[in-house]
Amino acid sequence: MPTVHPGSKHPLVIVLSGPSGVGKDATIAGIREIGVKFHYVVTATTREKRPGEVDGVHYHFLTKRDFQEMIVRDELLEYAEVYGNFYGVPKKEVRQALEKGQDVIIKVDVQGAATLKKRIPDAVFIFLMTPSPDELVDRIKARNADSETSVKTRMLKVGEELESLLLFDYCVVNIKDDLARTAEAVAGIIRTEKHRVKRRVIKI
Amino acid sequence: MPTVHPGSKHPLVIVLSGPSGVGKDATIAGIREIGVKFHYVVTATTREKRPGEVDGVHYHFLTKRDFQEMIVRDELLEYAEVYGNFYGVPKKEVRQALEKGQDVIIKVDVQGAATLKKRIPDAVFIFLMTPSPDELVDRIKARNADSETSVKTRMLKVGEELESLLLFDYCVVNIKDDLARTAEAVAGIIRTEKHRVKRRVIKI
Repeated sequence: MPTVHPGSKHPLVIVLSGPSGVGKDATIAGIREIGVKFHYVVTATTREKRPGEVDGVHYHFLTKRDFQEMIVRDELLEYAEVYGNFYGVPKKEVRQALEKGQDVIIKVDVQGAATLKKRIPDAVFIFLMTPSPDELVDRIKARNADSETSVKTRMLKVGEELESLLLFDYCVVNIKDDLARTAEAVAGIIRTEKHRVKRRVIKI
Repeated sequence: MPTVHPGSKHPLVIVLSGPSGVGKDATIAGIREIGVKFHYVVTATTREKRPGEVDGVHYHFLTKRDFQEMIVRDELLEYAEVYGNFYGVPKKEVRQALEKGQDVIIKVDVQGAATLKKRIPDAVFIFLMTPSPDELVDRIKARNADSETSVKTRMLKVGEELESLLLFDYCVVNIKDDLARTAEAVAGIIRTEKHRVKRRVIKI
């Protein structure tokens, strides 16, 4: 007979993805602001630190040599080369948070989400997108953090990324200047997933 | 290439079920109070009207002859005999609401939910339950609307109903004296389901 435990003791792994520039970081900050508790997994990367970014907070900034060592030691849940730089999700951080019973949020590009879907099929996969592709172009340009060439390279990826949408459980449209709504939608997904029968039923 | 439409044009069918006496009606009233818009499908029944119940609001109270005619005309989405009375979901009401783009909530017993799962597999199935079976017994007794025999008959059903839990997408524990929390959880499920990729993606 199946039984149900009232509190969800199984922490969630939430994978937040979407095109570059869509607002993943702002969304994560937004849900923390409205009181959702979680452990944010800091990505390891070999890319250059941008102004204002802090090592260990925004990314673990590593040399290519150090990153290669993590690969060799199998210390990454997934990793990928994107626009010539390496990005990876440290296994240790995810494991430690889950052991403490904390929900975990992993931010990855769509390529990474596809890998994580195979590795952690029970994770909750959320795709963040703009209302229209045009707006996405504007956002990427507005960031001013990349050269014109880099923007073009990224745009080629956009069509590909939209096609990957079917990998995801949820899609949230991030409407410009309404981050509160986006954050509330993602927070609602996290709360709702805790009511999923498949996460709560223990077969006896 | 798949595309996404920003507003969910496909209204939801929400099936709310759970053991008798768990608080399904109070939950439905609760989510309406916090501003969730939906069409509540009034069940047709042959059971006796209880004090305070209004025909067409709480149930469509029908004679056995009228109910049989609805069965013959195939006007019910599902129907069942429970404790000697007939209960059924009128097709017409569901169809009309969906055509207007309204989300629909259907309240059924667990037996009915199993039938609806086959008929409307894309519906959202929510199981409402008490924290413990003991509390459920207390609730049913407190209702005082049934004879002692009827309560016993119902209790035999409880074990069976818990076994059916695996049919459902979500399970919400209705904690006594905290209806607001239950209503918020169900409202959250409805909002979250609108972000499901499977409901939003149109393949082109």
